[in-house]
Amino acid sequence: MGPNPYDANCPSRPALGRIGGKWSVLVVNLLQGQTMRFAELQRAIEGISQKMLTQTLRGLERDGLIDRTVYPQVPPRVEYRLTPLGRTLVGPVSSVVRWTETHVDGIQIAQARYDGAQDASQ
Amino acid sequence: MGPNPYDANCPSRPALGRIGGKWSVLVVNLLQGQTMRFAELQRAIEGISQKMLTQTLRGLERDGLIDRTVYPQVPPRVEYRLTPLGRTLVGPVSSVVRWTETHVDGIQIAQARYDGAQDASQ
Repeated sequence: MGPNPYDANCPSRPALGRIGGKWSVLVVNLLQGQTMRFAELQRAIEGISQKMLTQTLRGLERDGLIDRTVYPQVPPRVEYRLTPLGRTLVGPVSSVVRWTETHVDGIQIAQARYDGAQDASQ
Repeated sequence: MGPNPYDANCPSRPALGRIGGKWSVLVVNLLQGQTMRFAELQRAIEGISQKMLTQTLRGLERDGLIDRTVYPQVPPRVEYRLTPLGRTLVGPVSSVVRWTETHVDGIQIAQARYDGAQDASQ
């Protein structure tokens, strides 16, 4: 029996939670094919707080998905890039991003219909 | 310009957050090719609380990804299944689940290394 996220005690369950998280998905998708600095990531992911970006990057680094390289210059340059393991995640993650971009209109139509039905039943 | 989750105000950003959520991913992946009752879903996703499962199913229904059918019998039978829109999400979502199952060992090795390096630097 391999790892199974339907098992409450399998480490794949929290891993799935971290990997599928919105901010992680946006960072991994952004780092495909490029190295980026903290400020560049923050600009690219509009509205993400410094704290949330720091936390997301630290989580991805701890999971072995990104590398953090510090260049000893003044001021120090810090760059983030995907590890070989992180690069294998680009396919699955970018397919979720593309799906969302493609289908968000359908989702919004469904929401309006759902909310209308809720209102009507009250 | 189409929907873009890197834009803080685009509805695709919260949609991405809901879709990538651990519980949503597990439910959508489970409903591929089968209709399931609430109690069956709860048994299959070990350790999910009734409240969390209710909330997840309601969110997926509101987003138009699953259908909830009530059969008027005693006691009423309630079944959940993917909508046509939800079925298009199975590919991306199941690729994230498979990736996690395949790579959780690598993640755990990276975590142990990261935590060891943190300890050593203290």
